[in-house]
Amino acid sequence: MDVRAAVAFEAGQPLSIETVQLDGPKAGEVLVEIKASGICHTDKYTLSGADPEGLFPSILGHEGAGVVVDVGPDVKGLKKGDHVIPLYTPECRECKSCTSHKTNLCTSIRATQGQGLMPDGSSRFSYQGKPIHHYMGCSTFSNYTVLPEIALAKIREDAPFDKVCYIGCGVTTGIGAVLFTAKVEAGANVIVFGLGGIGLNVIQGAKMVGADKIIGVDLNPEREALARQFGMTHFVNPRDVDGDLIAHLVELTDGGADYSFECIGNTQVMRQALECCHRGWGVSTIIGVAAAGQEIQTRPFQLVTGRVWQGSAFGGARGRTDVPKIVDWYMDGKINIDDLITHSLPLERINEGFDLMTRGESIRSVVVY
Amino acid sequence: MDVRAAVAFEAGQPLSIETVQLDGPKAGEVLVEIKASGICHTDKYTLSGADPEGLFPSILGHEGAGVVVDVGPDVKGLKKGDHVIPLYTPECRECKSCTSHKTNLCTSIRATQGQGLMPDGSSRFSYQGKPIHHYMGCSTFSNYTVLPEIALAKIREDAPFDKVCYIGCGVTTGIGAVLFTAKVEAGANVIVFGLGGIGLNVIQGAKMVGADKIIGVDLNPEREALARQFGMTHFVNPRDVDGDLIAHLVELTDGGADYSFECIGNTQVMRQALECCHRGWGVSTIIGVAAAGQEIQTRPFQLVTGRVWQGSAFGGARGRTDVPKIVDWYMDGKINIDDLITHSLPLERINEGFDLMTRGESIRSVVVY
Repeated sequence: MDVRAAVAFEAGQPLSIETVQLDGPKAGEVLVEIKASGICHTDKYTLSGADPEGLFPSILGHEGAGVVVDVGPDVKGLKKGDHVIPLYTPECRECKSCTSHKTNLCTSIRATQGQGLMPDGSSRFSYQGKPIHHYMGCSTFSNYTVLPEIALAKIREDAPFDKVCYIGCGVTTGIGAVLFTAKVEAGANVIVFGLGGIGLNVIQGAKMVGADKIIGVDLNPEREALARQFGMTHFVNPRDVDGDLIAHLVELTDGGADYSFECIGNTQVMRQALECCHRGWGVSTIIGVAAAGQEIQTRPFQLVTGRVWQGSAFGGARGRTDVPKIVDWYMDGKINIDDLITHSLPLERINEGFDLMTRGESIRSVVVY
Repeated sequence: MDVRAAVAFEAGQPLSIETVQLDGPKAGEVLVEIKASGICHTDKYTLSGADPEGLFPSILGHEGAGVVVDVGPDVKGLKKGDHVIPLYTPECRECKSCTSHKTNLCTSIRATQGQGLMPDGSSRFSYQGKPIHHYMGCSTFSNYTVLPEIALAKIREDAPFDKVCYIGCGVTTGIGAVLFTAKVEAGANVIVFGLGGIGLNVIQGAKMVGADKIIGVDLNPEREALARQFGMTHFVNPRDVDGDLIAHLVELTDGGADYSFECIGNTQVMRQALECCHRGWGVSTIIGVAAAGQEIQTRPFQLVTGRVWQGSAFGGARGRTDVPKIVDWYMDGKINIDDLITHSLPLERINEGFDLMTRGESIRSVVVY
């Protein structure tokens, strides 16, 4: 079938809106009509050419929501008409990772997904007779896409696509890191580095679970107002701190953070996030994605004296299990997504969404089909 | 009173056996007759002058066992005749750290202990009228010493001093890292880097809790036999591995270690220990103490994909609570200490014990008074 998609033909170039061909779902696969898709920094990172694993041509986008329009053979849990959120981290519930119950990083289709292909090793997308790569197993910058059943979370039908699409990546990454990875408890002191979309979701996750001090750190003073609205109790602009930032944060938290989160992807900030943690028990969680080849560094004494350094991918969420819950939390008013979606665009203007992100003018832009 | 002690007058010089003066216990303090004391790498590190926090003159030794001979005012939990193990990590049960229930790193007397002094800010030891520093709050290289009550674990009276003194540091550090810090579970795969005294205790801890594969990594092939006796199931000498050590270890564990332990103090090995952990859930625990100023380093991707980097001090053990249990485990035959104590010496020959350690000929030498 013919579908409308924003195609990334080559690195560093704007996306091109084209009619491309999409094959129907094979065994275990599902055809989804995408109704909305957020534009995420990861899409931009891959499009820039800086992602060493980036493939071209491809159809980017991994933060969508839509409706099942057809299912292939052997699909058991989804049917036509179901509302779904695509999962770049699937949940097969059968692989070593899923059955470990220790990680959300399902490995059942990792190899082919990394090659921009469906689990059978082929692509469903083509343009002028040549295959186009899938992206993160999702390719939500197309009004129709095909995904394995295990990479779709079924959600309630009254949830608005143009809001809950953000749960497909940013919301879950931020809130999940607090709830599922760090497991922040009520009364904890939390420090959040970087008040973009991820950081704001970390803040509202920390508020949701009853954290005490929720300290946001950002160089941009314009982030303060929105972050306070989401639950931030203290704002620290490193430019306004006399002397050492870590010492300042340790003092502000009476000994250091119980939990800190790095939401930028800056390896120097990752070090600060660890070292501002409380001796004995502070846990620092890396969420931001650093540029290829960059390394984190600290004195081992920081760990030997009780700090823990860890990371979080997709918020530690098991997609099919946890994403529907997060949709419920949004519908119940426990979390705020509306105020994070600052721009809404048709597919034809998707490149404007990338520009808004580059200029730091948007929290999240959403393509609405 | 006059006591016999090995005094560290200056860095880099052998200890000097002297008669020094010891004041009696003040409020909250206890006078202990030391019956035996292990010689640990940390004593050697400080004596060498490489420890930036090392103080001279001092009486080293922090791995002892003995008997209470006198108590000062306000001592409630100990009485003359009690058998005790000195604790360089005390357990006051009242400070922020102790009451957090999240760490064993009691902070109640940290400041004065770090200055080589008792909690009231003075020393009990003197030589020719001048004060001598305490060391790690213990100073077990003296046949009598004074400690705060909160820095003494009361143990059963049938336990032999010349064996259970090792529980004062090495045994607890190794076994505790497995049980209390990493909380290794039955069936886990464990990789241990460095098969000295700490590494061998990690191995027997892993065996005690029912680990599956227990892989020891050491450059010294002579360590293999003893490590197998303590529970090691596979020995890897990096010199015998064709190609990449990490890839070899990942293959040997079908994806990586569930838990790894660095027991050397080498920051390059700390990185290997992290990176040989299983994607999604592997936990690497640093036990070894790196030289001053050295740093650990890795790509943040290692953490974002689910590995956890942490450290352990005194095995995460709460001294007064856990040390008596470990003594019981030794007396019940659940752990082996006897085969780790390779040399026994009188105080007069203590410098031979340091030489044996330097030449790698001992696992543990114990001074018996």
